[in-house]
Amino acid sequence: MKKNLIVGQSGGPTAVINGSLYGVVSEGLAHSDVIGEVYGMVNGIEGFLNDQVIAMSPLKENGDLELLRTTPGAYLGSCRFKLPEDLNDEVYPKLFKKFEEKGIGYFFYIGGNDSMDTVSKLSRYAAAHDSDIRVMGLPKTVDNDLCLTDHTPGFASAARFVATVLKEIIIDASVYDNKKSVTVVEIMGRHAGWLTAASVLARTDANPNPLLVYLPESNFDQPTFLKQLQNALAKTNNVIVCISEGIHDDKGTFICEYDSNVGVDNFGHKMLAGSGKYLENLVKKELGVKVRSIELNVLQRCSSSCLSATDLNEAVNSGRTGVQLALGGETGKMVAFRRTSNHPYTIEYVPVDVNDVCNLEKGVPAEWITDNGSNVSDDFITYALPLIQGSVDVPQENGTPKFAYRK
Amino acid sequence: MKKNLIVGQSGGPTAVINGSLYGVVSEGLAHSDVIGEVYGMVNGIEGFLNDQVIAMSPLKENGDLELLRTTPGAYLGSCRFKLPEDLNDEVYPKLFKKFEEKGIGYFFYIGGNDSMDTVSKLSRYAAAHDSDIRVMGLPKTVDNDLCLTDHTPGFASAARFVATVLKEIIIDASVYDNKKSVTVVEIMGRHAGWLTAASVLARTDANPNPLLVYLPESNFDQPTFLKQLQNALAKTNNVIVCISEGIHDDKGTFICEYDSNVGVDNFGHKMLAGSGKYLENLVKKELGVKVRSIELNVLQRCSSSCLSATDLNEAVNSGRTGVQLALGGETGKMVAFRRTSNHPYTIEYVPVDVNDVCNLEKGVPAEWITDNGSNVSDDFITYALPLIQGSVDVPQENGTPKFAYRK
Repeated sequence: MKKNLIVGQSGGPTAVINGSLYGVVSEGLAHSDVIGEVYGMVNGIEGFLNDQVIAMSPLKENGDLELLRTTPGAYLGSCRFKLPEDLNDEVYPKLFKKFEEKGIGYFFYIGGNDSMDTVSKLSRYAAAHDSDIRVMGLPKTVDNDLCLTDHTPGFASAARFVATVLKEIIIDASVYDNKKSVTVVEIMGRHAGWLTAASVLARTDANPNPLLVYLPESNFDQPTFLKQLQNALAKTNNVIVCISEGIHDDKGTFICEYDSNVGVDNFGHKMLAGSGKYLENLVKKELGVKVRSIELNVLQRCSSSCLSATDLNEAVNSGRTGVQLALGGETGKMVAFRRTSNHPYTIEYVPVDVNDVCNLEKGVPAEWITDNGSNVSDDFITYALPLIQGSVDVPQENGTPKFAYRK
Repeated sequence: MKKNLIVGQSGGPTAVINGSLYGVVSEGLAHSDVIGEVYGMVNGIEGFLNDQVIAMSPLKENGDLELLRTTPGAYLGSCRFKLPEDLNDEVYPKLFKKFEEKGIGYFFYIGGNDSMDTVSKLSRYAAAHDSDIRVMGLPKTVDNDLCLTDHTPGFASAARFVATVLKEIIIDASVYDNKKSVTVVEIMGRHAGWLTAASVLARTDANPNPLLVYLPESNFDQPTFLKQLQNALAKTNNVIVCISEGIHDDKGTFICEYDSNVGVDNFGHKMLAGSGKYLENLVKKELGVKVRSIELNVLQRCSSSCLSATDLNEAVNSGRTGVQLALGGETGKMVAFRRTSNHPYTIEYVPVDVNDVCNLEKGVPAEWITDNGSNVSDDFITYALPLIQGSVDVPQENGTPKFAYRK
């Protein structure tokens, strides 16, 4: 008897989470001998609990499935919803009753470590209750902090965006190169510095910026930073500093918290500026040099202009592989990436136990952080460079990208 | 006798100011029968006064001239240097003596209205002192606020960036579409709202955001804004608001100034947040809804990923036309764009008196601003849409754009 497939997206959006979705849906539809309908849950498991389910096969007919590949964000919508730790909670039988009503045999969840927690719980509940539903996780996060996988879909396109705009910011900052200036660029990453590290991919022989790069994996010391910045300014007029939003001191206090109790606006709200804004003010005060700060903001996770072809292909393949593995009998697994060679760059897609992945974080290795916490080693470049290769032609309409929108 | 040509760049960088430079240099080099060397002044007229001059012909040989076309920023460096109003000031004979020493017969300056002021003064001084140097201006500004020209190179690529990333921000914001949220996007434009208006090019049938758009050409009233926002939130969950950095109230006070005297950081500095940050706090306080603000920052003026082919071609052509006009005897002119048809879109390049351009600003017409100051009419779309057409393949190297750097 045919079983149906359902897929959902969870957590923050990326540029290729819809690439993974495309992979699952197109592979699911290709196996019409064993898979009946392919469903999407709207707003993840939270929406599924409210019966927000759509059929995906119409997307193949109306052309939206192809557009989905290059549409950033989360086509199905997302949620941040943690299932209860207690597998005896009433939500579980409720969920599995809904699975049964919908004839679901295959459950796919695309997300980060919180989402893998959902996969873990559902697969453990299924095992404990003799359900034959196969529950699979597909990795996704711009933070690249998932364990047991070489890297994570979404990271490389975000890294390519960071490296590309850094090259442009470096050029923009050098326009008045006859005057000293500092530019502080704040990059996503509360606990993991992978994306910030990607800024070094913007370096060229002609311009070695960003000269200073600070990740949350090492403690940020303000006097040391000022000294390192002074040294850099002694050598060149325009210094670009890249920082993770999550840089913190040795007490674990986020740098951005240092001014949180200072300014209050007209409404009595704390003026929560970011770490970049804080360092801008610090540099202005202490060094008296021209300084500005730039927050890359959500653009770094949702840009289609800098899609990495490598990243997009891998996202699609992870989705396809997930379906194939589930059809082969796997459950409770996440599709992980194992790098088999750097020259040429090759990877394998392998199933790993989702319980070994969920709720854990993988940071940039300590030995890759150099120059007293202000730089990363060439090991990082060797690791990251293959991932950002290849451009993607995004369909255009009226001069802007043409995306797929849920009707 | 052959005369030499010199070209400089001034004011803020754009994505295509090097396209104009490419046009001047390649056309200049093509007229080797009458033009000797083609020089570039480094950091504009200010650098020229310090003898910072480079020969441009080597760029043709080493391949950098082709790269220049798609390199954002200002290859030659820029300056913000205003020549004295008094044409009897000693700087003028000093400048013209240097022109003579360098054998300069043709002077080109690429910039906005301040730069056209330089062209005006030099051409008037030349006329008053029987110098046969031909002094020409080439338009450039992302603000699109130059008079006597349909539009200005640099605007369209910035507009394409704004419309593209707005589409992506709209998608990013709709990921949690089951909850009410407001996103305030702050866009460049202190006095002219052209770039902010370009945000409406992101609208689609599937998502009509940005629902509210505020330009500095009309007064911004905070209670009216809150009412308009509440109306929008009553209709849809995710509302995107686009504002120019220069929005101000009916007294002329910039909205961002409303919190400038509130917060002071650890160093006693005023916490100058932008208008977007201010409105974020206002909405949080008054409507209690989830809200974030995004400042597009320098990325909008230096992005190569969203280059408009139309813009780049026009920038190159304006440079070429400038050289041809100067060879034909023109001086004291700016190369302006005259639109001759919308369907198909066609323009002519025409010389206009630089004295009628300099130091003036052209805003978005009042009749194009609709819905009580919160929208723009279809007239703007008819105007702007042809300008953002066409993608440009930017050469890539190691996964990021390959740019030309001054050695």
